[in-house]
Amino acid sequence: MKLQGILPFARTLLASAVGEGDIAVDATCGNGNDTLFLARLVGKDGHVFGFDIQIEAIAATNHKLEVNNCRQNVTLFHASHAELKNYIPDTMKGKIKGAVFNLGYLPGGNKTIVTKGDSTISAIESLLELMGKEAVIVLVIYHGHEQGKVERDEVMAYVKSLDQQAVHVLQYGFINQKNNPPFIVAIEKR
Amino acid sequence: MKLQGILPFARTLLASAVGEGDIAVDATCGNGNDTLFLARLVGKDGHVFGFDIQIEAIAATNHKLEVNNCRQNVTLFHASHAELKNYIPDTMKGKIKGAVFNLGYLPGGNKTIVTKGDSTISAIESLLELMGKEAVIVLVIYHGHEQGKVERDEVMAYVKSLDQQAVHVLQYGFINQKNNPPFIVAIEKR
Repeated sequence: MKLQGILPFARTLLASAVGEGDIAVDATCGNGNDTLFLARLVGKDGHVFGFDIQIEAIAATNHKLEVNNCRQNVTLFHASHAELKNYIPDTMKGKIKGAVFNLGYLPGGNKTIVTKGDSTISAIESLLELMGKEAVIVLVIYHGHEQGKVERDEVMAYVKSLDQQAVHVLQYGFINQKNNPPFIVAIEKR
Repeated sequence: MKLQGILPFARTLLASAVGEGDIAVDATCGNGNDTLFLARLVGKDGHVFGFDIQIEAIAATNHKLEVNNCRQNVTLFHASHAELKNYIPDTMKGKIKGAVFNLGYLPGGNKTIVTKGDSTISAIESLLELMGKEAVIVLVIYHGHEQGKVERDEVMAYVKSLDQQAVHVLQYGFINQKNNPPFIVAIEKR
């Protein structure tokens, strides 16, 4: 396949924005796959801040980082990304180069615990304040579940309203697939 | 800027699908920029077929190729891409790896001469027959003009209806910009 799938393209975007020694944020650790990916991108001189409201997700991420020898440069918070300004030190302001959100529910977890539009938007707003120029936020939007459609509509209305002088907002997705496949929205700070 | 703009991303897609010795199609030569780009991708062992309904476009493309020493492996047709099956030799069937369309009017030319949905769709259908597996068609959709909106809606309805078992259809575009910026639709044959 020549066209990049959704998850590979999310990683291409993160890798274009985040490099050795940078600061990055995984706003939804889930099973820790993206946390590990970011930890490897920033290397031993960088740092990753990871958030999840479910303790199972924090535990799974912690385990994944440990078995891959990447635990030392990651800080995990059992907290909502909506409050990330209360957790990320002020000294990091302007240094965050990338962030990722996987919206929806924890794969393999409780499907009634889902991300919500208002907290997602609140986290994006905080990140836009904290991030440096050319930093990129990648949202992978899952909207196969009912609440996912509500969140999708709220988040899309918000990102479309962002000032084009302040940020670029890109949408990337496959449009001939059944069953509401996930798609990407990427926000770059100008 | 970390996120690729529309025209750079169109070229990234073409370069991912088309290589040395391949066959490619510029369905709308215009001022010849993409024809030259494709001619360089396929190299001296490949070939590019270029179409345009305006003789000014064919002349401009011919000139651009000549001054860049890329004229020898390009065949230009002063004809509609809707008829490309009548112009591209049968021996090329299965060998075409990439094609590009810049929909709308000739930049700097007569703005009343525009591409139309039915001929664009007819050309896409022909290409899908002629192309090999993993070949990619890139459409750059300009919809700032009134007829462009009509063509956009016709083309989008068509590509969304394509069988996901036969092709991948990707949409790539910036969604917080004013004045109807162009966007990309890419179709990969499975």
